[in-house]
Amino acid sequence: MLPPFKSVPLKDRTWPDKRITKAPRWASSDLRDGNQALVNPMTIEQKQRVFNLLLKCGFKEIEAGFPSASETEFSWIRGLIEKDQCPDDVWLQASLAESRLVLSPAREELIRRTMAGVRDAKNVIFHMYNAAAPIFREQVFGNSKEQTIALAVKHVKLVRQLVDEAIARGDRTKWQFEYSPEAFSQTEPEFAVELCNAVQEAWFAGKDKSKEAPIIFNLPATVEVATPNNYADQIEYFCRNVKDREHIVVSLHTHNDRGTGVAASELGLMAGADRVEGCLFGNGERTGNVDLVTLALNMYTQGVSPELDFSNLEECIEVITQCNDIPVHPRAPWAGELVFTAFSGSHQDAIKKGFHHRKADESKPWQIPYLPIDPADIGMTYEAVIRVNSQSGKGGVAYLVQRALQLDLPKKMQPAFYQVVQAISERTAKEITGDDIEKAFRASYYFGEQHSGRFDLVDYSFATGADGKKTFEGTITDNGEKQSIRGDGNGPVSALLNALNSAFDGSAHNLEVREYSEHAIGAGSDVKAASYVCLVDQKSGRSVWGVGVSTDVTEASLRAVLSAASNAAVPADRRMSEIEDVVIGGRV
Amino acid sequence: MLPPFKSVPLKDRTWPDKRITKAPRWASSDLRDGNQALVNPMTIEQKQRVFNLLLKCGFKEIEAGFPSASETEFSWIRGLIEKDQCPDDVWLQASLAESRLVLSPAREELIRRTMAGVRDAKNVIFHMYNAAAPIFREQVFGNSKEQTIALAVKHVKLVRQLVDEAIARGDRTKWQFEYSPEAFSQTEPEFAVELCNAVQEAWFAGKDKSKEAPIIFNLPATVEVATPNNYADQIEYFCRNVKDREHIVVSLHTHNDRGTGVAASELGLMAGADRVEGCLFGNGERTGNVDLVTLALNMYTQGVSPELDFSNLEECIEVITQCNDIPVHPRAPWAGELVFTAFSGSHQDAIKKGFHHRKADESKPWQIPYLPIDPADIGMTYEAVIRVNSQSGKGGVAYLVQRALQLDLPKKMQPAFYQVVQAISERTAKEITGDDIEKAFRASYYFGEQHSGRFDLVDYSFATGADGKKTFEGTITDNGEKQSIRGDGNGPVSALLNALNSAFDGSAHNLEVREYSEHAIGAGSDVKAASYVCLVDQKSGRSVWGVGVSTDVTEASLRAVLSAASNAAVPADRRMSEIEDVVIGGRV
Repeated sequence: MLPPFKSVPLKDRTWPDKRITKAPRWASSDLRDGNQALVNPMTIEQKQRVFNLLLKCGFKEIEAGFPSASETEFSWIRGLIEKDQCPDDVWLQASLAESRLVLSPAREELIRRTMAGVRDAKNVIFHMYNAAAPIFREQVFGNSKEQTIALAVKHVKLVRQLVDEAIARGDRTKWQFEYSPEAFSQTEPEFAVELCNAVQEAWFAGKDKSKEAPIIFNLPATVEVATPNNYADQIEYFCRNVKDREHIVVSLHTHNDRGTGVAASELGLMAGADRVEGCLFGNGERTGNVDLVTLALNMYTQGVSPELDFSNLEECIEVITQCNDIPVHPRAPWAGELVFTAFSGSHQDAIKKGFHHRKADESKPWQIPYLPIDPADIGMTYEAVIRVNSQSGKGGVAYLVQRALQLDLPKKMQPAFYQVVQAISERTAKEITGDDIEKAFRASYYFGEQHSGRFDLVDYSFATGADGKKTFEGTITDNGEKQSIRGDGNGPVSALLNALNSAFDGSAHNLEVREYSEHAIGAGSDVKAASYVCLVDQKSGRSVWGVGVSTDVTEASLRAVLSAASNAAVPADRRMSEIEDVVIGGRV
Repeated sequence: MLPPFKSVPLKDRTWPDKRITKAPRWASSDLRDGNQALVNPMTIEQKQRVFNLLLKCGFKEIEAGFPSASETEFSWIRGLIEKDQCPDDVWLQASLAESRLVLSPAREELIRRTMAGVRDAKNVIFHMYNAAAPIFREQVFGNSKEQTIALAVKHVKLVRQLVDEAIARGDRTKWQFEYSPEAFSQTEPEFAVELCNAVQEAWFAGKDKSKEAPIIFNLPATVEVATPNNYADQIEYFCRNVKDREHIVVSLHTHNDRGTGVAASELGLMAGADRVEGCLFGNGERTGNVDLVTLALNMYTQGVSPELDFSNLEECIEVITQCNDIPVHPRAPWAGELVFTAFSGSHQDAIKKGFHHRKADESKPWQIPYLPIDPADIGMTYEAVIRVNSQSGKGGVAYLVQRALQLDLPKKMQPAFYQVVQAISERTAKEITGDDIEKAFRASYYFGEQHSGRFDLVDYSFATGADGKKTFEGTITDNGEKQSIRGDGNGPVSALLNALNSAFDGSAHNLEVREYSEHAIGAGSDVKAASYVCLVDQKSGRSVWGVGVSTDVTEASLRAVLSAASNAAVPADRRMSEIEDVVIGGRV
């Protein structure tokens, strides 16, 4: 076990009363931390794809890598600069681990190599970091606090000198300097401040601070070792105690070892930080850096523009998963494939009602049960929202019928069709797809040309008598055999039913209408009518549903009657197995 | 966008000064929330596997499901009870969504069905929840606050009545009652308190509270809609304002929509909660419930026993991923396959030093750079820690040689072999496995029987002269041809070298020893010696390394010399391609 974490003594913290009201400066670490932590690091082509994506998402600060680390890194960064791939408002960040300086005899050479790597870039953030935490000072470097400070100051001065030389030489580059006391979250808070104050002094020595770009102090939770409120306390402590806060950009860099990297960054922003470093989808060493997609979309859902564009999240997922060869988890916030999915019936029902409620006034803020964001805002479709398995309810099933066939099933019809779906679902023990539901629906109601029941409509005419009674005269098929039938009623439905009952009396039918409804599909010249009818067999008490669609309302209702009558002509058990066979086929 | 979250007015919060000092009551929701959110819900067999795993991990409160939801759920729960699968100290939780009561005309029937489902279990938590948040009240149920309270009270009373009847009947069951105001985190905090007070009053009506099990108020962040400090404020507000806190168990149930479900539960515990509901590896609707593995191991690393046993984490991963058909992400805290992996050279170096440091006193608390937990504590091996790709350094490579061959390469030899590995790694652009490294090492130093260089040792003897000089006389093979050679020196190494230089002078060699070191491998009668020698060719200045292992120290050193001399006999470029061919073979 680790020793319990030592908290910062900060009783008068103010961050718990704050909230995030504007986007921070974002810095992508995908090409440094992310790349370093891959089983197969990216090729140059993959780095280029990620770089282009980062620009497209709106990143203005992009870590390019470690120019001094290898020939490959160096030439990749040179390529970005020489092929002029950075827009004028984008800063390239180049990093150098001071630990390498400490351990290497060639330390000046490494700094010069880093400078050579970014020479003539438009905007450069020169980033140097070293290990400030006792766990590193004692176990890795064997340095005291004083030695740690002295070395940092020495190296910062050398960077400053080289930057001054570049400026004197007339290079076009604009510079920022970033310094990270590594494992900040495991460092004595007062020592972190002392070290950063010394670095600041070295960097600004002899300069007029007000004319200089602020220095970036990046405060990494290199390894996450405590609940995220502790990190916020550390950030607030740092912001309150560091010298000349106004000339400093406080930057967060959290990892996710305890699964609270996002929380630590959010609370850190509330505690006063200005900038966040992280990776898309939380890539990076071990459990990863903070996930910038989550952070940004969290802000978005709270009405704060993140100033990053993830409206095409699918593209981001595709590029990053291909280049990193690491998946986005199906339950990853915002981006996972199951994130907007409701399988459970009560959830589906609530979401359906929420959408219905929203239709009344779409200008209101987004408020749909179980959906903290409008999936459309990040390029996701509603199709993903409702998915059906054995845990789902009739509402979800009806929703999918509606999407597949534009049929808005009457409430009383939903349980009947739901029974069919549930039987199939229990038999397969698998998710029922939208396709399955469409198939089941078509089979259940002889809907569409592929599905014929006992009865079908060939032609018909109506006559209206002096008493207002309708007379149906027409041809139907009975198991493929044409037959002329005739009947009267108050309307087309009852007239056809009367004709059917007369023609087939005693054989199978004595049907009456229990429910009838219809609605339009589409609008204008393409408009169609959908009719739904529930018939009840007076002999057995069994009720059956039917559906008909036609450009003609009357024809739709006649087809609905024949659909239901066809159902009534087959015993219930046999009917169910016929339908299952159509849907499941060879699946089980 | 959502409207900004409305915070609880709680300026004098105390939770930020707290820390988690003991394990909460854990309740697994894997078989309810988890199961409901699967593309393919679990089969009975899979539920049984998960249930057994939960028992093994030490869960004492396990949600079994919704007895009233379907025939399958009912009979699964009956099976658990009738086959006596619950130890005496384990509570079965059975749930009922009050929303179903509100929407269904058969509400009394559903409560009775739930009771029938758990009849005669030893320990039952009857869990009822309903929708208290305005987003549900208004959009889904169309209920006022008063109606919401009245319905909840009515249903609680019915449950109480049925429980009292069961007790009067002499059933053996012990009972707890749990009530969840759904979407607690989106509910007006004062209304949540009012509702729970009314429920409490109904539940305890006419009882002596001091003789009753406390009522569980489970406070779900059904959808995570704000930074996690807000949830903590809500929990602290609830704990401070609810009636008779001492008769209440406050339970957390967080989801992960904003990626801060773990943080919300941790801060919620600091805010006073007693119990946590969640799922292993964060399964559950959308982004999942809080991940109980992460929460428990977070506690563990801070010296707090979680009272759950994840010492065989691999088994947990296997069972859950197989039953849920959802992977554990490679970067998931504690459980992901990359979590303990360091690819970067500086990280590997720090970890190596940390292990070395720890050897001095293993009784101290765990403190290794970049490793917040001892991987062995959760059944992980150290092999996973150091993995090598093009981002790795010589330290990691040396570590792997050490693990594979028990050879502790001298510091000055490491860069030479590292160059070989880096060349291979850059050519393949893939991770280098431990096997690859072993192959490369064997090929580089003609180490082992499969690898022969120009020279090999057949037999030898040494004579020591009066002046202390050693004379080597022996047979070596030169490209397979036996040859007798003879030479003198201050010791065996220099004598052999003198013999080599004499025999082959002018053809290729004029070799001198630059570095020499040796160490023992193993101990006791099995002890062997490993020798390392660096020779430098006086003509070209090129230096080459060799390695020899033998039960005899002298023989080890002779073999090391011949290994190095064999390397010197092949031009450097050609040597490198020979080695690459051995390792990469047909791989690229």
